[in-house]
Amino acid sequence: MLVVGELINSTRKRIQPAVDNRDVAFLQDLARQQGEAGSHYIDCNAATVGIEREPDTLKWLVQIVQEVVDLPCAIDSPNAGAMLAALEVHKGKPMINSITAEKEKMDQLLPVIKQTECKVIGLCMGDGGMPQTLEDRLRNASILVDALSGAGVAAADIYLDPLVFPVSTDPSYGRLVLDGIHELHTRFPGVQAVCGLSNVSYGLPQRKWVNRAFMVLTMGAGLDAVIVDPLDASLMALVSATDALLGADEFCMNYLTAARGGKFDNLQ
Amino acid sequence: MLVVGELINSTRKRIQPAVDNRDVAFLQDLARQQGEAGSHYIDCNAATVGIEREPDTLKWLVQIVQEVVDLPCAIDSPNAGAMLAALEVHKGKPMINSITAEKEKMDQLLPVIKQTECKVIGLCMGDGGMPQTLEDRLRNASILVDALSGAGVAAADIYLDPLVFPVSTDPSYGRLVLDGIHELHTRFPGVQAVCGLSNVSYGLPQRKWVNRAFMVLTMGAGLDAVIVDPLDASLMALVSATDALLGADEFCMNYLTAARGGKFDNLQ
Repeated sequence: MLVVGELINSTRKRIQPAVDNRDVAFLQDLARQQGEAGSHYIDCNAATVGIEREPDTLKWLVQIVQEVVDLPCAIDSPNAGAMLAALEVHKGKPMINSITAEKEKMDQLLPVIKQTECKVIGLCMGDGGMPQTLEDRLRNASILVDALSGAGVAAADIYLDPLVFPVSTDPSYGRLVLDGIHELHTRFPGVQAVCGLSNVSYGLPQRKWVNRAFMVLTMGAGLDAVIVDPLDASLMALVSATDALLGADEFCMNYLTAARGGKFDNLQ
Repeated sequence: MLVVGELINSTRKRIQPAVDNRDVAFLQDLARQQGEAGSHYIDCNAATVGIEREPDTLKWLVQIVQEVVDLPCAIDSPNAGAMLAALEVHKGKPMINSITAEKEKMDQLLPVIKQTECKVIGLCMGDGGMPQTLEDRLRNASILVDALSGAGVAAADIYLDPLVFPVSTDPSYGRLVLDGIHELHTRFPGVQAVCGLSNVSYGLPQRKWVNRAFMVLTMGAGLDAVIVDPLDASLMALVSATDALLGADEFCMNYLTAARGGKFDNLQ
């Protein structure tokens, strides 16, 4: 399971002032903690500073993060200009977070993607607005796979997000994602499935239990990558156990290493 | 998800002396706690007292349990005589735990089952010893479904256990169970799938994480019932969240009731 640590996102309450004030120590500490918790990518989002300041700020954010962790970043922006600025200084193979099947978005981002060796998250939404059905999502997925393949992105670097809606608003939204993961793998062989999963618990109390359960369910359905809070140590313990249970952790070596390294020691 | 509380089992270290010494207070407290934690059935096993004393002891155990909880029991014994004795005093619709596809076992238990309105757990093992492959399990399942249907048990009362082996001994054993649950439902429509899941983590450290993850994975695969420690409150929180995520908890009412009732309050 590829884990993208989601915490350095300026739309989060504690992060916005830290980005505004360029609080290097706070943000680097968060990057370090997410790396130690098992993240493979560190998400970097500075979008709340506004479109004019975003290119410089995102570039700075990626730089200070990579000063303290030896990991690539998920460059998280709605704007091609900010992405380009951040990509100039990024070390390693970045993840673009994200493109959609909307025409305007593709016109903006595909040229950036074409000139970069990168992984790309494609959200299964298009010009018709938020998709309602599984078929809507798969239609958008098809547009994305065609466009990204055309831009030279290998199937293994395309991460499709079937879009997670809150199960509190419709009890079928959980299964829709599980079926979506399965169908994405069936219809687009070699392509990866990713979720930003915490949206599923929106509107419910004690959300962490819903997020943790959904983490395991989506892994069971074949999820390849997740955008998540890696500092939820119980969630990460479940990820490790689930990898072992699904035969994705040979001889349970990663699970055993985590357990023996004390990662689960202070957890209930 | 139908939950069978597994704790009153004389093969467990703390239970054996309590059964031997007829420690009513201790055992009733354990029954009460399991009921409050959300069990639908209380497993009762007194097999360690030996075949001669088992009928009287199991009968006594069922009686003291049902004095304090308003729940049916899973009558857990390898011996038809002990089962008959316990069934004489049992109130409500019992669960027989368990029959197998072994000829001797069926000859002993089918007459008991024929004369009782009950649910039955059928372990997918037969005269060939422990099944290795999924096909072995399904062959035993077929024998069990035929025999139990012949004895008048409705499909909805037949609970088939695909048998859980430790994932530490073979990384494919987790998926074997998930595939098994799916295949049991496909080949025997209307029949239920059950697991005693904690065997999956045997040989690994910090087993609770593996058990919890497997609980969610098996639910995702369609498990209908589980034999489990209901006093693991984190596991029960995950069961509740998973029911909501799978659309098995209309309007998330059970999840909300549990959360608002404080069931998740002291959990990390």
